Amino acid sequence: MHPDVEAVFTDIRATRQTDFINNFWHVLAQDPALLKRTWEQVKAVMAPGALDPLTKEMIYVAVSVTNQCGYCIASHTAGARTKGMTDAMFGELMAVVGLANQTNRLAAGFQVPIDEAFLPPKPVD
Amino acid sequence: MHPDVEAVFTDIRATRQTDFINNFWHVLAQDPALLKRTWEQVKAVMAPGALDPLTKEMIYVAVSVTNQCGYCIASHTAGARTKGMTDAMFGELMAVVGLANQTNRLAAGFQVPIDEAFLPPKPVD
Amino acid sequence: MHPDVEAVFTDIRATRQTDFINNFWHVLAQDPALLKRTWEQVKAVMAPGALDPLTKEMIYVAVSVTNQCGYCIASHTAGARTKGMTDAMFGELMAVVGLANQTNRLAAGFQVPIDEAFLPPKPVD
Amino acid sequence: MHPDVEAVFTDIRATRQTDFINNFWHVLAQDPALLKRTWEQVKAVMAPGALDPLTKEMIYVAVSVTNQCGYCIASHTAGARTKGMTDAMFGELMAVVGLANQTNRLAAGFQVPIDEAFLPPKPVD
Amino acid sequence: MHPDVEAVFTDIRATRQTDFINNFWHVLAQDPALLKRTWEQVKAVMAPGALDPLTKEMIYVAVSVTNQCGYCIASHTAGARTKGMTDAMFGELMAVVGLANQTNRLAAGFQVPIDEAFLPPKPVD
Amino acid sequence: MHPDVEAVFTDIRATRQTDFINNFWHVLAQDPALLKRTWEQVKAVMAPGALDPLTKEMIYVAVSVTNQCGYCIASHTAGARTKGMTDAMFGELMAVVGLANQTNRLAAGFQVPIDEAFLPPKPVD
Repeated sequence: MHPDVEAVFTDIRATRQTDFINNFWHVLAQDPALLKRTWEQVKAVMAPGALDPLTKEMIYVAVSVTNQCGYCIASHTAGARTKGMTDAMFGELMAVVGLANQTNRLAAGFQVPIDEAFLPPKPVD
Repeated sequence: MHPDVEAVFTDIRATRQTDFINNFWHVLAQDPALLKRTWEQVKAVMAPGALDPLTKEMIYVAVSVTNQCGYCIASHTAGARTKGMTDAMFGELMAVVGLANQTNRLAAGFQVPIDEAFLPPKPVD
Repeated sequence: MHPDVEAVFTDIRATRQTDFINNFWHVLAQDPALLKRTWEQVKAVMAPGALDPLTKEMIYVAVSVTNQCGYCIASHTAGARTKGMTDAMFGELMAVVGLANQTNRLAAGFQVPIDEAFLPPKPVD
Repeated sequence: MHPDVEAVFTDIRATRQTDFINNFWHVLAQDPALLKRTWEQVKAVMAPGALDPLTKEMIYVAVSVTNQCGYCIASHTAGARTKGMTDAMFGELMAVVGLANQTNRLAAGFQVPIDEAFLPPKPVD
Repeated sequence: MHPDVEAVFTDIRATRQTDFINNFWHVLAQDPALLKRTWEQVKAVMAPGALDPLTKEMIYVAVSVTNQCGYCIASHTAGARTKGMTDAMFGELMAVVGLANQTNRLAAGFQVPIDEAFLPPKPVD
Repeated sequence: MHPDVEAVFTDIRATRQTDFINNFWHVLAQDPALLKRTWEQVKAVMAPGALDPLTKEMIYVAVSVTNQCGYCIASHTAGARTKGMTDAMFGELMAVVGLANQTNRLAAGFQVPIDEAFLPPKPVD
């Protein structure tokens, strides 16, 4: 095993406090540099911060469902349940994701112009 | 104004406690039945429940950003800020959305098989 | 069985005049409120109106194919065939969907500006 | 003007019976081979067949809305109106597109397995 | 076998110098006109030109991965390997595809305005 | 200016050998940690390796066009031209991107099963 792969696997096990490493990381190990960059990013982004880990995991599910990524839906839904997502929370998450995908198309199809009140601020230096 | 449109607009104003009605609803008013169904769904889905309104609004933003819906990004980001999303929360939201869109493609491109541990339960009656 | 689930299932069977209820509804029954809202919307939107049911079903297939939703492609293609879609109609449907997905990218990639003649009307009160 | 561009423009004018050529074709003219292939395909696919031209145009709109292609939404909605799409038909088209985008995500998010009744036939020689 | 299907299959075998015809073409043979148009386009677009065949095949993979098309990812990744894509090239291809999908969402979510320096030229006759 | 932002901006200018910093980075500077992670990733991934920088830039364009990201299409098309992309190369790039988006939907819509010859290898430790 490539030393970078070994180091990442050790860190995944320590961070998640489990021996289990899911297929995503095993497959990514084909390219140790990509594995390392991806894991470091996951570790930094998914850590508790202004948003708690469960909220982050549900946002991950929302994106994966929107993109129809079968693997990601399965793994992150499992991850969210481990972090405390109940059936009721999952149902509401799906309801929002479904609704947003619907109204995204209504806004586009009806060619709705952005309200002045919603315009973003100009870029600053 | 069609009576259904008037009723929906009155309910939007009462529910949101503001006179402002954004372009999305004005444009949808072209089809009163669609306007009514869409508003009733938004009202039911976005109400506080197992998930709080801010979390729901951020999930809405996550989907809209993934779909590149300009109108929806502008309106729901403004909505989330009104509900209390700080700059730090927005930055983390974007970081998760970006990361998920990235790993969704790594999982697909590397053709990662779903781990047995993540398999969903069979459908039940 | 939750009374709302039972009521929805009874209505699906009556509306479609068949005892068969496909997996989508069985799985959605995990969240009775979401099941009820989704079925009521499907029933209202897919009913005959200005567009006939077969045209609506083919539009459903067009969206599902564009989104790469395996379940939806399978179920709505079967639904369209039940409603009278022939092999020739299916072939042309796929041809249009494929072409539109292609020219959508050519328009975006070449950054084509919208012709004045195509500009949508301004939103009205 | 490249002779292939001239020939395509002449054919667009003759086929559509109008002098107006929209920006899409003007911009594509940068690559005469791509322009020619694209126009020939549009001409063949969008001609009346097992599906009528208006139905094809509405399917085009459905795909363009799903993909959030601003140019294509504007041009094909205008095209569908020219071919006879009424306000009521447009409203129902949008309702189906919105609904399909919603249920596509519910099917994916709930990881619904394909019913045996919907399984496609095996490929044949 | 329909004569158009036979002619296309003969041309696929001659062009690719192999007897193997993958499922995509067998299934498309259900609609001989669509099969013929699609093959002629693939043959013209994927031929060596200003871009070499391997680069074109990797671009095909990039699109297929972005769209989560399981069949296309499998077939075009195999095609790219046949044309000389190494493990290192595949790893970098995936890294770019993942990164682009990420920054596409950051640009959209932060509502970044296009720099004047990047504005496309106006359409010309 | 936050010291991390200043350091990143200095590195962007040094790496690209130009004083110009495009809006994407200015806007991302709202979240210095996200800016830093994103730039470090861009720098690592887009550097010459098994694939040359122009090929990587064209892959970036292919993804951005598929996703309909207006900002990214504009910036990376400009970037590819700076790195040597000719009009002919751009035309072929668009042709492949358009074709792949088309056949992705044909493969999905016809529910083409993956050929055994294309099946990916099992994950390894």
